[in-house]
Amino acid sequence: MFVDIIIKFGGSAVTVKDKLETLKDDELTNACCIVKNFLQHNKRIVIVHGAGSFGHHQAKQFNVNAGFTSEDTKLGFCMTRVSVTKLNNIIVNRLCQNGVNAVGIPAFGCWKTDNRKVIQHNIEIVNDVLANGFVPVLHGDCVFDTTSGCIILSGDTIIKTISKQNDVRNVIFFTDVDGIYDKSPQDKDAKLISDIAVEENRSISEDISTKRSNIDVTGGMELKIDTAKDIVIDSQGRSTVFVCNVLSDPSTIFNTDSVFNGTIIRFKK
Amino acid sequence: MFVDIIIKFGGSAVTVKDKLETLKDDELTNACCIVKNFLQHNKRIVIVHGAGSFGHHQAKQFNVNAGFTSEDTKLGFCMTRVSVTKLNNIIVNRLCQNGVNAVGIPAFGCWKTDNRKVIQHNIEIVNDVLANGFVPVLHGDCVFDTTSGCIILSGDTIIKTISKQNDVRNVIFFTDVDGIYDKSPQDKDAKLISDIAVEENRSISEDISTKRSNIDVTGGMELKIDTAKDIVIDSQGRSTVFVCNVLSDPSTIFNTDSVFNGTIIRFKK
Repeated sequence: MFVDIIIKFGGSAVTVKDKLETLKDDELTNACCIVKNFLQHNKRIVIVHGAGSFGHHQAKQFNVNAGFTSEDTKLGFCMTRVSVTKLNNIIVNRLCQNGVNAVGIPAFGCWKTDNRKVIQHNIEIVNDVLANGFVPVLHGDCVFDTTSGCIILSGDTIIKTISKQNDVRNVIFFTDVDGIYDKSPQDKDAKLISDIAVEENRSISEDISTKRSNIDVTGGMELKIDTAKDIVIDSQGRSTVFVCNVLSDPSTIFNTDSVFNGTIIRFKK
Repeated sequence: MFVDIIIKFGGSAVTVKDKLETLKDDELTNACCIVKNFLQHNKRIVIVHGAGSFGHHQAKQFNVNAGFTSEDTKLGFCMTRVSVTKLNNIIVNRLCQNGVNAVGIPAFGCWKTDNRKVIQHNIEIVNDVLANGFVPVLHGDCVFDTTSGCIILSGDTIIKTISKQNDVRNVIFFTDVDGIYDKSPQDKDAKLISDIAVEENRSISEDISTKRSNIDVTGGMELKIDTAKDIVIDSQGRSTVFVCNVLSDPSTIFNTDSVFNGTIIRFKK
């Protein structure tokens, strides 16, 4: 199915990552306004959000990502799901309050992995929801894994899987910084990279020093770049990835008359 | 799959029906304690809950049950879902807090009806979740209908569908009264009926005056009896239905040494 935009609401973009179950209220509302703006331009949209401070705490406490190592892990699995579905409920509610016909679609139950590799998904349901004129809102979730019992399925894996199955034109990552920088954005002389060209062999045109900085400081940018690489290479350039600030101005973002203030990642043939 | 017990948390049992999104806290906790007690006796359990004051208000306001009559209805559909999934999150959380490995499984997306008749469901997922040692928690939800666009799928329809597909031994309805009475339980001389025998032709052994009383006063008992009839007739007596108070003592309920204080509905061959 044709999808104009998959939007990722990053965990650090819409929640305060180190404060248990704490929202970034203004950021979430702005993200919803941007979505509404796209819909007014008749874009077909899928939203995927991270967990941030909803779920991560419980997942870490019970080491859910290691599988069902004990009976305790099962309760930890459930409590992690309670937290991420709570965030999903809040985000879907906020979207509705902003006039978006949003519906939550958990991965649990439908998605399954074997040794961390997706072997089952519910993209046919996502597409059915889109065809009925709704905005599906998926999220990072705990799912069953046929090898270890369970894993944490990341929002990025969900985006990559949807991109493989569908004809997705744009993938936007909303983050808590303006885009991808040549070094940690906390460094005074860090420069925003406006364009990154990805080659078939995964090499990129820019030197990015994420590896040398704390991954939390950069908001998991390295993983984001890896996901972006997969998307543009797998689609052979049909999909373009954008990384930008969740507080971007809804009226100018991706307006053809204005300059995009963020990072564009494209496939270089 | 063999299921020991499907438990319905009635909307009026765990929420204050006429107060928007208001829980009955003690009742919900007691229901969770009863579930925990059953699990300690190694029972395989499915929970289904109603909406009560979560969802009903929004569904009524937007007339969601009539289908997608306007673009507004779509937003009403989404807002109804936000409310019922909020209740699901609260119930699953409370179950976890009581040591139950509970996971929410919405009907939306997976279940579909045609002209109000179920043509698609996710019982294979429910069974997978059971086989993995978890307690699935389903709920009344809004789903797509191929004729009218959408309908409200009741928890009772979900229970009947699961009962048809599985080998279900007991179905328990938790309500805000002690069981089924011969007239409205608010009448001073109303008597609790301890046993109801249902015949193949749907006739029952007792004269119940629900038709003559306000359906809200009796807590929708007529619908409950109809659901119970379907379950015991469809299963040809393999399933027995119990109606009892959500505040029943967790340690004595269905204890073979104690008398069951409620209504038992059985198939009469």
